[in-house]
Amino acid sequence: MTSPEIAGEVCHVAHDPARRVVQPDKARLLARLGRVEGQVRGVARMIEEDRYCVDVLTQLAAAKSALNGVAKQLLESHARGCVARAARDGDGEVAIDELLAVLRQLDGKAFD
Amino acid sequence: MTSPEIAGEVCHVAHDPARRVVQPDKARLLARLGRVEGQVRGVARMIEEDRYCVDVLTQLAAAKSALNGVAKQLLESHARGCVARAARDGDGEVAIDELLAVLRQLDGKAFD
Amino acid sequence: MTSPEIAGEVCHVAHDPARRVVQPDKARLLARLGRVEGQVRGVARMIEEDRYCVDVLTQLAAAKSALNGVAKQLLESHARGCVARAARDGDGEVAIDELLAVLRQLDGKAFD
Amino acid sequence: MTSPEIAGEVCHVAHDPARRVVQPDKARLLARLGRVEGQVRGVARMIEEDRYCVDVLTQLAAAKSALNGVAKQLLESHARGCVARAARDGDGEVAIDELLAVLRQLDGKAFD
Repeated sequence: MTSPEIAGEVCHVAHDPARRVVQPDKARLLARLGRVEGQVRGVARMIEEDRYCVDVLTQLAAAKSALNGVAKQLLESHARGCVARAARDGDGEVAIDELLAVLRQLDGKAFD
Repeated sequence: MTSPEIAGEVCHVAHDPARRVVQPDKARLLARLGRVEGQVRGVARMIEEDRYCVDVLTQLAAAKSALNGVAKQLLESHARGCVARAARDGDGEVAIDELLAVLRQLDGKAFD
Repeated sequence: MTSPEIAGEVCHVAHDPARRVVQPDKARLLARLGRVEGQVRGVARMIEEDRYCVDVLTQLAAAKSALNGVAKQLLESHARGCVARAARDGDGEVAIDELLAVLRQLDGKAFD
Repeated sequence: MTSPEIAGEVCHVAHDPARRVVQPDKARLLARLGRVEGQVRGVARMIEEDRYCVDVLTQLAAAKSALNGVAKQLLESHARGCVARAARDGDGEVAIDELLAVLRQLDGKAFD
């Protein structure tokens, strides 16, 4: 990668092991994931310290919500980037099937 | 903690800052959270490496599902431990309201 | 039933086939369910008329949301009525297990 | 409709008020919706009869699950029909944005 690339610029469909996707706003995505990791570690620390279950669950709910936010960001940029590109290139059907499969894996909960 | 304690054995209701709850199967809970943390870090690494969005989302779905599993375990042991104990002690109503509030925070998704 | 009763007033635990629960705000619950029924019929009519999928899905999303609202109202009044009463009567543990089971059936989605 | 049409055969994008979509397996969709309507009516009847909350919630959970099944069927055939067609016709981006919007309305729960 020698130049800044927009999302999906190098996106390929399905089974190409070499496909690479530079996420748009990659730094922000990584920062969000870093925060989620810290929240999960915080939940563990609270359990170590025998904190009250409801306080632990409140922190865990925050981690879940943050992780869902990342999933939603990824899913939307995938749909608008890779899927839209595949569609323009005549590979829309494969990309749409793949999108539906990932929605099932997420149990749609990227949008919760 | 010098002796084995069962869940909720030292559970107090609501606003006691000193309430302490030793989670039953605490070691297993911490191990599960350690795995979730590793999965979240794995998602970040995949984004760093410009991996294909769908592969990232698949890993993220696994992290979400594992985090939901922890929430479910905590919620059930809270209900069977602290809430049941509060009920026996005549504080059932406060504990039930608190349980409903935490379910709303989790958006019920501990059970997804 | 000869007199107005509050929720859970006649609530019994578990396997009593004769248990009866007069829902608080019963008229409002029934009105909400009548609206859900009308929304579901509306979805069917739109499909009959070959309406655009996205318009059908929007109406279906409204029906889902309304049905979730009813589930949430029922679940909360059950927890505050029957479960709290069972707790006072020393049957808290059975009632809490039953509540957890129904949350799993709803997939927690009364709170979505 | 005088001839058999496949899904999306007459599908148009976005703001065409005349767009018509004959759902594939329309009869089965309508039969599923008829069952959901009956289930919702059954929930109302149980509340009328002052049935135990948990039994009502169990029936309501079944109605929810059936309604989710319909949403999932509609969403998948929309994605594979209308969205794929729009993609082939060069309108993929509009159709994908519309799909993301409807997922948000459903809160992704077609896939729950």
